[in-house]
Amino acid sequence: MNSSEFRKRGRDMVDYIADYMEQIESRQVFPSVEPGYLRPLIPDSAPEEGETFEEIMKDVERVVMPGVTHWHSPYFFAYFPTANSYPAMLADMLCGAIGCIGFTWASSPACTELETVMLDWLGKAIGLPEQFLAGSKGEGGGVIQGTASEATLMALLAARTRVTKRLQRENPDLSEAEIIGRMVAYSSDQAHSSVERAGLISGVKMKKIQSDGNFIMHGKALKKALEADKAEGLIPMFVCATLGTTSSCSFDNLMEIGPICNEENIWLHIDAAYAGSAFICPEFRYLMKGVEFADSFNFNPHKWLLVNFDCSAFWVKKRSDLIGAFKIDPVYLQHDHQESGLVTDYRHWQIPLGRRFRSLKLWFVLRMYGVKGLQEYIRKHVRLAQEFLEFVKQDNRFEICAKVVLGLVCFRLKGSNELNKSLLQKINNAKKIHVVPCCLEDKFILRFAVCARTVESKHIAFAWKHIEELANELLNKEGEQK
Amino acid sequence: MNSSEFRKRGRDMVDYIADYMEQIESRQVFPSVEPGYLRPLIPDSAPEEGETFEEIMKDVERVVMPGVTHWHSPYFFAYFPTANSYPAMLADMLCGAIGCIGFTWASSPACTELETVMLDWLGKAIGLPEQFLAGSKGEGGGVIQGTASEATLMALLAARTRVTKRLQRENPDLSEAEIIGRMVAYSSDQAHSSVERAGLISGVKMKKIQSDGNFIMHGKALKKALEADKAEGLIPMFVCATLGTTSSCSFDNLMEIGPICNEENIWLHIDAAYAGSAFICPEFRYLMKGVEFADSFNFNPHKWLLVNFDCSAFWVKKRSDLIGAFKIDPVYLQHDHQESGLVTDYRHWQIPLGRRFRSLKLWFVLRMYGVKGLQEYIRKHVRLAQEFLEFVKQDNRFEICAKVVLGLVCFRLKGSNELNKSLLQKINNAKKIHVVPCCLEDKFILRFAVCARTVESKHIAFAWKHIEELANELLNKEGEQK
Repeated sequence: MNSSEFRKRGRDMVDYIADYMEQIESRQVFPSVEPGYLRPLIPDSAPEEGETFEEIMKDVERVVMPGVTHWHSPYFFAYFPTANSYPAMLADMLCGAIGCIGFTWASSPACTELETVMLDWLGKAIGLPEQFLAGSKGEGGGVIQGTASEATLMALLAARTRVTKRLQRENPDLSEAEIIGRMVAYSSDQAHSSVERAGLISGVKMKKIQSDGNFIMHGKALKKALEADKAEGLIPMFVCATLGTTSSCSFDNLMEIGPICNEENIWLHIDAAYAGSAFICPEFRYLMKGVEFADSFNFNPHKWLLVNFDCSAFWVKKRSDLIGAFKIDPVYLQHDHQESGLVTDYRHWQIPLGRRFRSLKLWFVLRMYGVKGLQEYIRKHVRLAQEFLEFVKQDNRFEICAKVVLGLVCFRLKGSNELNKSLLQKINNAKKIHVVPCCLEDKFILRFAVCARTVESKHIAFAWKHIEELANELLNKEGEQK
Repeated sequence: MNSSEFRKRGRDMVDYIADYMEQIESRQVFPSVEPGYLRPLIPDSAPEEGETFEEIMKDVERVVMPGVTHWHSPYFFAYFPTANSYPAMLADMLCGAIGCIGFTWASSPACTELETVMLDWLGKAIGLPEQFLAGSKGEGGGVIQGTASEATLMALLAARTRVTKRLQRENPDLSEAEIIGRMVAYSSDQAHSSVERAGLISGVKMKKIQSDGNFIMHGKALKKALEADKAEGLIPMFVCATLGTTSSCSFDNLMEIGPICNEENIWLHIDAAYAGSAFICPEFRYLMKGVEFADSFNFNPHKWLLVNFDCSAFWVKKRSDLIGAFKIDPVYLQHDHQESGLVTDYRHWQIPLGRRFRSLKLWFVLRMYGVKGLQEYIRKHVRLAQEFLEFVKQDNRFEICAKVVLGLVCFRLKGSNELNKSLLQKINNAKKIHVVPCCLEDKFILRFAVCARTVESKHIAFAWKHIEELANELLNKEGEQK
């Protein structure tokens, strides 16, 4: 395909995308396909000769679309939102065309420098303390990771290295394996599964601290666990606190946890993957009170801030801690400027070596929406969650299972887990809306998350009416059987 | 921005991209900016009110482009190629619009199923043994990783778990930390820096085996090292062999290494990040002889197979080994079909949880180019490298430093490292072409890699003429000083 054909096909694709978005409401939000549906629909090997764009686009509708879960349908209320906006898509097109791999400053200076400045913009916009920003002289700074999982892992690896170096300075005979074998990291029992995974990958024991009745991790429980571990000769070295847990959007108590971590020289990482976007509104910043105690902070603009996946923003107070985690410098990646101090080589800040020009997406979104536009977007979603909450409250067959703070409503039918599993199954079998469950204190719960950019009050009202109807059917049937 | 504005701006962006590609030759391949150039060019925080698309596009030319290293310029001969093609860009646009996160089968069945089948297509197209394919009943299968670094890390983690489980079955008192502390992994001294990094992340000692005079790792050297380590009570458990090393594009001897790994129950991972794309041509498959001994195999279609970054293809012979590395199942990610056996949940196959619909890129590229089109593309690049090689050979002031097998030519001026550093500096200061160095046996070497999709014989001839002229200048000056 040459440039002039691309001009034509690019337009076709732009129109296909605009059509898809305009008409997404008419597509079934959750697909009807069964596992293995796709293989029989296409040949079993790649064609020898090239095919046309038209042939492939026909297959997009025939093969792909019937198997897509439409995350951007206004009837999608599952997981947490994933972002999708036109400015981000335009920026991603440009990113693909430039197609540079920004592992070092020299491999594309604009890719690195725009990222550093955009993370400063974003940090300021959400009210992050200045110590986390790079500025022109700061010791901190931000980087775009692929996912919050990677950010947590990077923070844990940096902490692991910091502690190992310190202990080896004090006692040079200690091996790294011995030290790591005695390390302990902590998170709440409500933390995301990726935190447990970071422990598995790095070989550091990850312990779960019991949260309270509101799913919040407190200082007292943490303190108790780490004192017990210290008494056994273990080395507490990392805490991952969550702002906006996946199950119920609860917020760990940073004002209690933070000072303990600082006193004990424990790395405090904050995972605000979902909730972080809300801090662009000053009225939600009370939720991150105590962030100043942290060593690192992470949230996903690709969740709730209209920047398409992947764009997970990660800040550290001390760049040197992160870079120290594993700086390796082969000759083919060295360049003239690298020791100048002004230069950032982001390959030392992340797990992979390669990286795309993802800051373009942030730049386009922050500029085209403006801070005010993004604030309005968050406030609208929070308002929609309140609308859903009010519906649930008005039906006394249902109960609310966690405080509704942002865009997530956890609810269930009063009654058994089996009953609620049946309700969820009815909802997802009907395929008019899509919802996923969670467990809170052994209770099976339905999570209703406000997700799509296109969702409006009418969709919330529709969703509730639909859920009520299915609940009626279910409870009537139960009644008959009794 | 609404759909109708996107229709307009999308077209503008498509045209901008086509213009950029058509005129890329006229842009300076390596930028003239100094570190810190970008920050003063833009405001120090995000705007409150939204701005227009035109304002941002003006800044793309004013702020971004002057700092871009143009990887797709036909004068770019640095690192290894990174792919960029119109079909891949079109697919990526669609990927952004669908914007699903394919962590489980249910989160978007098409995303998972197309990936499994595309990895089968690709595996067949490069002649990978059937054991690596998923088919409908196979135990193996492929997955798209972000980078080769992540593939190596995943393989090492899977090996680490496999060995730990085996040893703990034999001796339940052994702790994981004790076992990991005794593990050893191996690669050639020519392996990519990401292999060393995988060792650092996982806590497994990574030892470098000395390669021979042609930069090849042999069985004998490996065998010697692992016997010595076993005698010391260590546990050899992983070998990363490279097909197409970064410095010189050498190929480790799989026919020697493979049987040793199989006998010793050591996980053999093959990193063919760059060279793997060439195996789409049957005449280059002799270079992967012995691949059947491997447990896992990886190459980057995003390097040399016209699929835009990121798309790193990774296959394992036993899916269960990979999934076993860290299967964690929170309720919010469980779904009805997950225990059916037919279903793949790719979140267990990778470091991050989130993942884009990247198989669309593979599908578009394989279909629009066809296998023949991709073969032609590889052959053309190999031919261009041969053209450059002939030029170098005709000038007896220069020497060739490694066998030229695919698209990389390692060469230098006969003489000191200082002389060659000066030549490289002259080349990169002139900014007419871009080249990076490497070290081979303490010699400073210039790496000339055929990279861009748009590169033709005339660019190769220009590059060589330019290098010769700079060498003339340098040697004349040296002569005068003597």
